[in-house]
Amino acid sequence: MTEIAIFGYGTVGSGVAEVIGQNAAQIAQRCGGLHVKYILDLREFPGDPYEDRIVHDAAPIYADPEIKVICETMGGATFAYDYTKRALSAGISVCTSNKELVELHGAELSRMAKEHGCSYLFEASVGGGIPLIRTITQALTAERIDCICGILNGTTNYILHRMETGGLDFETALKEAQDMGYAEKDPTADIEGHDPCRKIAILASLVCGKKLDYNDIPMEGISSITLKDLAYAWALDGTVKLIAKSEFSEDGCRAIVSPRVVTQDNPLYSVKDVFNAVLIHSNMLDDSMYYGRGAGKLATASAVVGDAVECAQNAGRTVECGWSEEKLALADCDELKQKYLVRVKRDAAAKAKEILSAERELLVTEELLAGKIPAGVLDASAFSDEEALVSACMTEREFKKKIAQTDGVIHWIRM
Amino acid sequence: MTEIAIFGYGTVGSGVAEVIGQNAAQIAQRCGGLHVKYILDLREFPGDPYEDRIVHDAAPIYADPEIKVICETMGGATFAYDYTKRALSAGISVCTSNKELVELHGAELSRMAKEHGCSYLFEASVGGGIPLIRTITQALTAERIDCICGILNGTTNYILHRMETGGLDFETALKEAQDMGYAEKDPTADIEGHDPCRKIAILASLVCGKKLDYNDIPMEGISSITLKDLAYAWALDGTVKLIAKSEFSEDGCRAIVSPRVVTQDNPLYSVKDVFNAVLIHSNMLDDSMYYGRGAGKLATASAVVGDAVECAQNAGRTVECGWSEEKLALADCDELKQKYLVRVKRDAAAKAKEILSAERELLVTEELLAGKIPAGVLDASAFSDEEALVSACMTEREFKKKIAQTDGVIHWIRM
Repeated sequence: MTEIAIFGYGTVGSGVAEVIGQNAAQIAQRCGGLHVKYILDLREFPGDPYEDRIVHDAAPIYADPEIKVICETMGGATFAYDYTKRALSAGISVCTSNKELVELHGAELSRMAKEHGCSYLFEASVGGGIPLIRTITQALTAERIDCICGILNGTTNYILHRMETGGLDFETALKEAQDMGYAEKDPTADIEGHDPCRKIAILASLVCGKKLDYNDIPMEGISSITLKDLAYAWALDGTVKLIAKSEFSEDGCRAIVSPRVVTQDNPLYSVKDVFNAVLIHSNMLDDSMYYGRGAGKLATASAVVGDAVECAQNAGRTVECGWSEEKLALADCDELKQKYLVRVKRDAAAKAKEILSAERELLVTEELLAGKIPAGVLDASAFSDEEALVSACMTEREFKKKIAQTDGVIHWIRM
Repeated sequence: MTEIAIFGYGTVGSGVAEVIGQNAAQIAQRCGGLHVKYILDLREFPGDPYEDRIVHDAAPIYADPEIKVICETMGGATFAYDYTKRALSAGISVCTSNKELVELHGAELSRMAKEHGCSYLFEASVGGGIPLIRTITQALTAERIDCICGILNGTTNYILHRMETGGLDFETALKEAQDMGYAEKDPTADIEGHDPCRKIAILASLVCGKKLDYNDIPMEGISSITLKDLAYAWALDGTVKLIAKSEFSEDGCRAIVSPRVVTQDNPLYSVKDVFNAVLIHSNMLDDSMYYGRGAGKLATASAVVGDAVECAQNAGRTVECGWSEEKLALADCDELKQKYLVRVKRDAAAKAKEILSAERELLVTEELLAGKIPAGVLDASAFSDEEALVSACMTEREFKKKIAQTDGVIHWIRM
């Protein structure tokens, strides 16, 4: 039995206690069991089943030689940073769901853990309960990973899914996501792409073993996506997803978060609702995909507890993730190559096709809409003034130069 | 740098050498590097880049204190069993792709590894390069797994995929798979379900921590599946897949391998071609899915090398998979519950619907076939003498009793 403490008894923290209580038998099978000795929180929780474990001062926890693991579920990068450093300095392993802290200080905290013979693990910080961190640091260790392409934010995937299946516009779908509790009151971090950007920064850092700053990653959210954009994606047998992408080559790592047209031949196409998925391409295994719930109290808590199990199995040593503090400079993202779906005004279409070396023209017909959208929401006449095209495959640099020379552009989306 | 030996220089064994050579930088990042010191094979390989490492006698390898890991890629359960025991007895970790040996003796070999302070790892034995074993034994350790449902055989998935997309009958699709090198000359192990049965036996054993005998698992292959069966699956917005399934509940573990109708709302629906995927349902995480190439020289070799990296990281200790030799008796598989797609002769249909409490009737129309199948292969007139129905959800026991009382049954498939 390994004694642990939970720091922060909010949604994920209480989930950690619940997972440990409910799945005690399974946890015992893997590591001999986990026992929650302390729960650190400023608040009181009268009537809570773990009421007797609540404490308000961290110092006695660090000083308790029985405590081997702390589950840090406080969130934020100020107090949590300080508390984590003190725990690791005391030789206590820390497991966390705190993606902000991991993105900012994960490399440093991993080094501190190693110096003190304990571990800093953060499976829950990316993709909730889906084992993505382990896949990169422990499973695909004989692979050269070329590309990671993921749906890493459930809120935006839900919004796009509801726009598509319900014929809702962005604002209505966002409101629905807020009502369902999937989106925050201030939804900026999700819809503008900050959240998936942090997550791809963590994954790319672990692939390279260096520290990538998420502020360096170009980022574009989904608030500009309309039903009309989706209609053209349908004409391509595709849909629009918010994709966090990172490519790795000899000249470095590139990363970008943006909406993309994803077609049916891509396994990410089928990832609906609030589900997350990450498609990894590597040189020996080719494509592999990892799919599941990327958020939610219990899925996230389960990943934190899974890390605690691993710490318990590795008591007295460090589970390494191969993450150094050396800064990873992002290679020039304008070199990323892809096709682009471009909507243009009808009278400018011929010229646009020429400039962008269009490979394909897209039409939205009544039949296409009839199979996809509730009656009355959008009809083909709404597209009478415009057309869309699929450009040739070209770098962002080349495309941006060309699109600046193109008149009548309504909107464009990467493919 | 960790010194290793490869036992068996066939397809996978030469892949192991290739992966170690090509991805040396990535491997060094994770474990300081692997070096192939010996390759054990009865044959000579003149001109091979590793010609100088070939040896014909295993004894000096066991006696070499530098050797920490052996990659066993011999296959079979006789010589490989003996060689593995001798290696583990010498305190040398063994990593393998040998599913036959793992299914038969994995629990015993895991115990031997633990007794000698080394590891026995077998990620490559199930799902090729997809990290499935690790997911169960190391990632989802805080979960109570309720159900594993997988496409674990690439050959049969390819055959069904080609029947569906090419309008081929089973024999033609099998011949094509053989010509492509996806199916063996004697394809029995694949098409009759022995191969996925071994694999689900391994996964279910690791969930329960006990030893399941694959001979206990009811097994049905795909040789009886016809284009007509597929047509009814299409009428349900589904397709037919060979599914290895295991359910875990308080009264035990049940497992079965059989063709099933898989509908579009199931993430396994989109798993085409030779790809494998496993859908795991667990009580905290809900559904998660793991997808990739389940076979192939390099994908399989990469998983073996990934295990070798883990052995190198854990030199002098045992990476445990929690597998005891205690026999796991399978719970009664006649208690498994599902719906069934049943094809019956038209004149017996009314009575069949009554007996099987049909929830739905299925019709094959020209429109349905036109969207799915090359012209001229199969038309709706071929279905003039028959109908199909979807039964109520019931146990296998109940269904088998009822179907025995039903006249005019042409074929039935689980859903």
